[in-house]
This record gives sequence, structure tokens and C-alpha cells, in this order.
Amino acid sequence: MLPVHLQPESHVPLYVQLRDQLRALVHAGDLRPGDRIPASRELAGALGVHRTTVANAYAELESEGLIQGHVGRGTFIRGDGHGLRITPPAPPVLDGARGIRWELLFADERGEEVLSRLTAAAPEDALSFVMARPAEEFFPVEDLQTCINAVLRREAVEVLRLGPSDGYGPLKEALIDVLRKDGIPVKDENIMITDGCQQSLDLISKAFVRPGDSVILENPAYPGAVAIFNGARARCLAVPVRTHAEPGAALGMDIEALEDTLAANRVKLIVVTPDFNNPTGMSLPMESRRKLLELAARHQVPVVEDHIYGRLYGQEPRVPSLKQLDRGDLVIHIDSFAKVAFPGLRVGWIVAPAAAIERLRVVKQNTDIHTDQLAQASLAEFLKRGLFTKHVAKMRKIYALRLAALDEALRKYMPSGTRWTKPEGGMCLWLELPPGFDASELLIHAKERGVLFAPGRYFYVQNPLPNTLRLSYASMSEKEIARGVAILADLLRAEMKKRERGVRRAERSRVALV
Amino acid sequence: MLPVHLQPESHVPLYVQLRDQLRALVHAGDLRPGDRIPASRELAGALGVHRTTVANAYAELESEGLIQGHVGRGTFIRGDGHGLRITPPAPPVLDGARGIRWELLFADERGEEVLSRLTAAAPEDALSFVMARPAEEFFPVEDLQTCINAVLRREAVEVLRLGPSDGYGPLKEALIDVLRKDGIPVKDENIMITDGCQQSLDLISKAFVRPGDSVILENPAYPGAVAIFNGARARCLAVPVRTHAEPGAALGMDIEALEDTLAANRVKLIVVTPDFNNPTGMSLPMESRRKLLELAARHQVPVVEDHIYGRLYGQEPRVPSLKQLDRGDLVIHIDSFAKVAFPGLRVGWIVAPAAAIERLRVVKQNTDIHTDQLAQASLAEFLKRGLFTKHVAKMRKIYALRLAALDEALRKYMPSGTRWTKPEGGMCLWLELPPGFDASELLIHAKERGVLFAPGRYFYVQNPLPNTLRLSYASMSEKEIARGVAILADLLRAEMKKRERGVRRAERSRVALV
Repeated sequence: MLPVHLQPESHVPLYVQLRDQLRALVHAGDLRPGDRIPASRELAGALGVHRTTVANAYAELESEGLIQGHVGRGTFIRGDGHGLRITPPAPPVLDGARGIRWELLFADERGEEVLSRLTAAAPEDALSFVMARPAEEFFPVEDLQTCINAVLRREAVEVLRLGPSDGYGPLKEALIDVLRKDGIPVKDENIMITDGCQQSLDLISKAFVRPGDSVILENPAYPGAVAIFNGARARCLAVPVRTHAEPGAALGMDIEALEDTLAANRVKLIVVTPDFNNPTGMSLPMESRRKLLELAARHQVPVVEDHIYGRLYGQEPRVPSLKQLDRGDLVIHIDSFAKVAFPGLRVGWIVAPAAAIERLRVVKQNTDIHTDQLAQASLAEFLKRGLFTKHVAKMRKIYALRLAALDEALRKYMPSGTRWTKPEGGMCLWLELPPGFDASELLIHAKERGVLFAPGRYFYVQNPLPNTLRLSYASMSEKEIARGVAILADLLRAEMKKRERGVRRAERSRVALV
Repeated sequence: MLPVHLQPESHVPLYVQLRDQLRALVHAGDLRPGDRIPASRELAGALGVHRTTVANAYAELESEGLIQGHVGRGTFIRGDGHGLRITPPAPPVLDGARGIRWELLFADERGEEVLSRLTAAAPEDALSFVMARPAEEFFPVEDLQTCINAVLRREAVEVLRLGPSDGYGPLKEALIDVLRKDGIPVKDENIMITDGCQQSLDLISKAFVRPGDSVILENPAYPGAVAIFNGARARCLAVPVRTHAEPGAALGMDIEALEDTLAANRVKLIVVTPDFNNPTGMSLPMESRRKLLELAARHQVPVVEDHIYGRLYGQEPRVPSLKQLDRGDLVIHIDSFAKVAFPGLRVGWIVAPAAAIERLRVVKQNTDIHTDQLAQASLAEFLKRGLFTKHVAKMRKIYALRLAALDEALRKYMPSGTRWTKPEGGMCLWLELPPGFDASELLIHAKERGVLFAPGRYFYVQNPLPNTLRLSYASMSEKEIARGVAILADLLRAEMKKRERGVRRAERSRVALV
């Protein structure tokens, strides 16, 4: 049998693992042109996976020209002379003897960009629940253009020259004003401008985390945060997020598990998205916020509060942010314009104790000098003219309607056995398929029907649940949302029926979904 | 005597080291209010430094209110009740018992921003040779504004939405065109957009360097590069840059030393600025470029070519860039708009083999998603309309005139015993004072006369020569350049005369300059 080893606990779907390992065997010469490979049923049995997993891997290898089926004879490795089109998984060796094998120089294992791979080659008009991004049809482009022109008329040279690493003065001023209204009174020394929340996490990691340090993340979490701390060679400790009510236990980050993790480890940072967590949509209740801050104070561990979705609350009153509740200078609060408008302009900010900001400013200077000042100045103008507040208010209503449409469609179409979270804002909802179903496999079929989403395994720090998926609805119209959900439900029902009819044997827990 | 330990080989000026250590002794309680501290002459003798070094440290501590002199009695630590104004060197402990001691969390020793400290508190109208930055009075602001408005009219939504991590398509296209004219024919897969050269170095470090890896840098080098690789916990190996002709040895990076370093170490990257090196202004001759590439190929070590000053050549013909000469896919070529125009827009690019770009793209995505697209699109338009080429041509002439003015002023005013490099472009020139003089101490006096520059020690990876300094002339008019040089020469002559008159005893090699 083939030397293939699949890792069901990996973020990488099983069929992708199988495809890549078979391809590697061909490249290594272990499989040669003309060699016969096992039938999908045979290999599936040997590996303990569903036959569809093998079939999907074979289909991709066939489309690459690497293998070929012959009726009545089986499947064979193709020879070079047969129009072979190999897409090598690793970069090729360059320029023979003198070339550098770049892939050997990579500092880490190559980050698998599972999400973009899974959604690649989808039709352009697909209904995409994949990205948590703002609705671009409402971008206030003319307002922004007015702001840009005002800036260029008034302060072009100031904007276009080299600027301070902690940010363009007028933007800091305008944000201090916004923060005061948010209930976070800060001084100039408490705020710094960055290229957005992803960079803020990178700067925080560089400033405070050494290789081997432990960082607490939610599980599931924003993959960009996991990538940052993995890249910094930190130990990522996962604290579960409770997505469904249980007796005596609050929704959101499991505070008891947090307490245990803090007690058992020397932790350097706690990273949390208290409002409308990406990917689950869950928020941390008031009582959990207080407890989290108490624990952080007791263990003297700073808390990074990712507030990127915080303004997109669907209902009043807002639960106070951790930074609002912070009486011990414990919280590094990060935020960005990206989920409200203009993610193509890369501007975010960090609010933190002055000592932390001073350190982050030095790191920022050593990282990229400073953030683009045309974007900073234009957004400062956008804030000062009240256009930001106006746009947030408008988008909150639109996203609330879209979220309601999503919930309604799920209730209308989804079969029993599925369940989903009830976010009160943000951009994401978390759907659980019945146990035994794999959202990555569902995606393959959904893609054929023109619907895309993000499989849940992509978001887990550890112990991924393959039957989960994220639906990001903010950039879709209510009609598109309903249509997309109906298609997903349709596929799911069809598969459930097949299973009920006993067409298949009892499924193993990590079985594939047709 | 006081427990003070000065490090003459440090980047930090001696008087700053002394000041900070004395302050720390007070904060630690080793020196208490009312304690008498040694007279400056006495302490200088004990430490083996010039008395002025101690006097400068004392002067700063006095201005902070930490110490006070009493005529006829000596100098004493002040008590809390005497208007004490302490500027603590480390961030304060926050909120007493519950606050986090942020300074204990810093992942590294805090990066001393010597340059900004040294030049802080200078008068606004000072003649500043400090920053290597473009002349902002020639910024083609109206041209840029036209480009921005064209972009917003035509492609606002594309620009303002989330974009690809490897860069905005039209900018990549426009740069491929520029590169073809530079003699570097590349495909889309060989280029990536970044936030500028500082970020390019950061991404390269993240992609290819692990803690403990060895990286070769020029000595002296661009401090931003040193900060990046130090931050990545790499071993920085210094290869000297020869700034003055010696028999049988080429100017620029010492290729024999490079060969020895490569032979003695497993090296991960060679980082070099072949054209108009910052800080020395030196360029690598053609023969050295070929040898460098041969060595890199033999040892299979990639070369990072910092081309940021490459377009600002004063004379034809240009020496080909390393990337132009690269036949082995060895070179990662980094470049930026920042030295030509608009450093406030943070846009640069990397040209490299496809395998390296693919890796860098993933790192970029995990670092800050992508570079600001309004800046990218506007600069693409600026390139496509031929405005970039036009502006570079204009600025090359202006900078050549300024460089000539600098060289002329140096020849006219500087005393014998000084020497300086003869750059053929770029923005920097490297001046050597006579042995025994310390440019950091000269700066203290120059600042009083309204002239600023960057002391050379700030640029050394190791073995700093305290008698060197960098003069960046690009942002100063020819008159300002002449005036600034005259003042520096004046201060230097005065000091030389004092020494000649034998007012002072024979100076030690690392003595201070009054």
C-alpha cells in the first residue's frame, strides 16, 4: 500500500493532504509513469477515510494531468509525454546547479493558505460567504474624495513628507475624540496609528512576545492572529469559546478554562475579541468581561482586545468594551477602519498605557517607519466632518437586516441537526452541521453550485471540529443570503437522505461528506 | 567610587551612558538625596574618559533637577522637596499594585533611538544634515493630485476594497515596465508591493531568517536594517565598507572580507546597498559586483540588494544593479518611491525569484494584509503618465548640484586632518574627523550653533569609529549646505587649536570633543 499518512486533526482537509502526498510521491520518484494506483474504494478502506475523500484527491490529480484512469484497467501515473501539467506544491529549484533552493530557506513550514486555496477557481458570480468585509456598494466614495481633496489643498507637503511613527497628528486627535465618545478618555501618549489590526497584532507580538512565550487565544480564533503568534514561535494556548448555552455556563470565551490556563502556565498575553468574535459571532457577557479583567490583573497578564467589529452592534445598549472597564491599565485595545469602510486604505489604531505605546512606537518605526499619511489625513478629515459616525450608523442598520435575513433563511431551510450562533452584530455567524459531516467536503460541492463559505477547521487553534463553518454575510444582499443558504441546505439534506437510506455503512466520526 | 561601567564600543554616546547609569543609581536608591557625587575631573579620570563627557552628563542631570551644584562644596543628589523633575528612562509602574510593569514585558532590550534623542530639542530652523530624505519643495503635488483624482473617478471601489497581498495589479504592471527599462525583465510572479524598503527588509527577515541565523551586513550600514535583523535575533556579521582608496583594494564593500566571512560562517543572507550606500555614499565597483555574485552563487547565499538610492545617480553611465547582473536567481532586489518623492506615501517593491515572492506574499498577508491601495493606484498612475521618470530626472540634477556644493564647501572650510567620501549620487556623504575626535560630542556643540548631523557610531554594526559622521544633503539648499559646513568647520578648527596650544594633555583615543 502507498506510504500515505493523513492527519485528521490538521487544518488541511483530508483530500488536500492526500492529493499533496500523492503528488510528492510522484515527484520523489516513488510513483513512476505507468504505475497503477489503488482504486478509490480500496485506498479509502486502507486509510480509514471516506471514498469521496480519495475520489476528490484523484479528481484534482487527474485535472493536473498527473494520473489517468483507463476503463476496466484502473488508474495509472501518467508519463511525461502525455501532456503532463504538474502544479508543483513546493517552489521549483531554480537555475539548476547555481540556483538557490529558495524553499529550503523558508524560516518556517510554509503557511497553508487553506481558505484561498479552497475558494480558488470558483466562478466570479459565486455567492460568497467567505470574507468578513464591508458592503462596498455603500462605500461613501464621494465623501472620501471630498476629504482627500481638502487634505491635498491644505496640507499636501505635510502629508507627503516622512512622518512620525506613532501616527499623523490630526488623525490621532480625531480618534481621541471618537474614543472619548466611546467612553475611553485617552491622551496623545496612549494612542498609535498602524496599518490595521493585522499589523497591530504583529507589532504587539514583536514588542512583547519572545520565542517560547505562551499566548492565550480563543478557540476558534481569527486565523490572522494565530499566524502572527505562530510566526513569532509563541506557544498558542487555546481557550474554548462556548457558542451555545449550557446550564450554568455563559456564552463566549470559557472563563473557567481561562482561569485554569492562567493558573497552569506563565502567560504573556491574552488575545480576545469580546464583541462579535470572528469567526463565531459570539460576544462576551458583561460578567465574563469583569472576570476576565480580574484574572488578568491577578496574574499580571495584559489583554489584547480586538475591537474591530465592536462598532457594528445590532442592538442598544452596547456592552462596554474591555478598555472601558479597564481600571488597571491592563488592556491593549486595537481597532481599525477596515470593517466600517475602505479596507483598501490600511489604517488602524492601538490604545494602550503610555509605556506600551512608547515601546510599540519604536517597533513600528523599525517595521515600516510609519503608516501611509495620505490615508491617515483623509480619514482624519472623514472623522472630523462627522462622516464616519454617519456611515457607521447607516451600516449598522444594513448589517442588522442582513443578519436577520441570514437567521431567517437558516431557520427556514436548514434541516434539523444543524445549529448556529445568534450574533448581535459584527459580520460572522457560525454554523454547525450534524456530527460526522465535514464542512470542507461540503464546500467542494457547494462551489459547484456557486456558493462559498469558510470551513470551520481553518479557525481552530487546536481540536478542530470539521462539522463547523463560518458564514460572513455583511457583503451580501438579503436575497443573496437567502439563495445561498437554500443551496447549502439543499446539499445537506440530500446527503442526510442518502445516509438515512443506509446507502452507506456506519460512518466513522471523521468521514467525508458527498 | 561609583559603580559605573561605560562601553566605548556601544552605539550610545558615552555621556548618555553615564547620564543614564547615574540616574538609575538614584532610582535604585544607591545614591540618595544629599549624597555628594565626584567632581567631573575626578570621575573622568577614574573612568578614563574626557572631562567634558562627565560635564555633559552632569549638565543633563542638573537640567532634570536630579543633581545640584553648590559653590565651594561640590555636586549633590537633590531631595524630593526641591522641585525634582525626573524623566525616568524606563516606563513607570502603572497603577500601583494592580498595574502591569510593561517595561518588564518588552521582548528585547529597548532599542535606543540615539539619532532622534541626539537631535531632539534642536531649534526648528536648524540646518539639518540628519535625514536622508527628498527635497520636499520640489514635490510634484499637483501632478499627484491629478493622478489621485483620475484614480478615484475611474476605480474608486477597486481601490477602496480589500486587495491582493502581492500588490495592486496596475502598480505591478507599471513597475514591470520601469524594471524592463532598468534592464531587469520580470514577470508578474517576480514582483511584490510593500510599504517601503523598511518593510521589505522586515518581510525578508520573517520569510528567511530564524533566530540564530547569520546575516551579513555592510559596516557601517543602514540602522533600519540592523534593527530588523537584531529584532529577529539573527547574528549580524559585519563586512567593512572601504571609504578611501588603498593600493590594490577597491572602494565599497571589502570583497575579500566578504569571502572570508562566507567561508567561516553558514550565512543566510547578504544585505548590501551597492549604489550610494547609506551612510557612506560609497558604490560597489563593477568588478566587486561580479565577485559578490560569484561568492553568493558558490556559497548558495541569497543577496538582498537595497536599491533605494539607485536611481539618484549623478553621472552616466550607471553601473548595472546586482539584479541586472544576476544570472543565478540569487538576488532579492528592494526599492521604493521614498527617496524620489512622497515618502509620506508608504510604497516600495521587491523583485525576486517567483519562489521567494510566493513565500514573501504569504508573510505580507500575515503581516498587514496588503499595502494601502489609494497610494498604490495613485503611484501607478504617476508612473504610467511618465511623471515618475520626469521627476527622477529633475531631482537627479538637483541632488548632483547639492552634492557638488557640499564637496566644494568641505574643500573650502574643513581643516586638514579631515577627509570625506566622494559619492557619485544618492543622498549621503561620510566625513571623518581627525582621530581622537568624537562626532557625538561635536553634535552637542553644533546643535547650539543650529547645525545637526548624524554621528557615525549610530551606523556601525560593530567597531564604531566615533570620529565619523554622516552628512545628508538632499533636503538642503546649496546655501544652507555651505553655511552648515562652515559652522561645523569653525567648531572643529577651534577645538583643534585648543589642542594644539597644549591646553589639554595628550588625548586618549576615545576622548571627547569640547
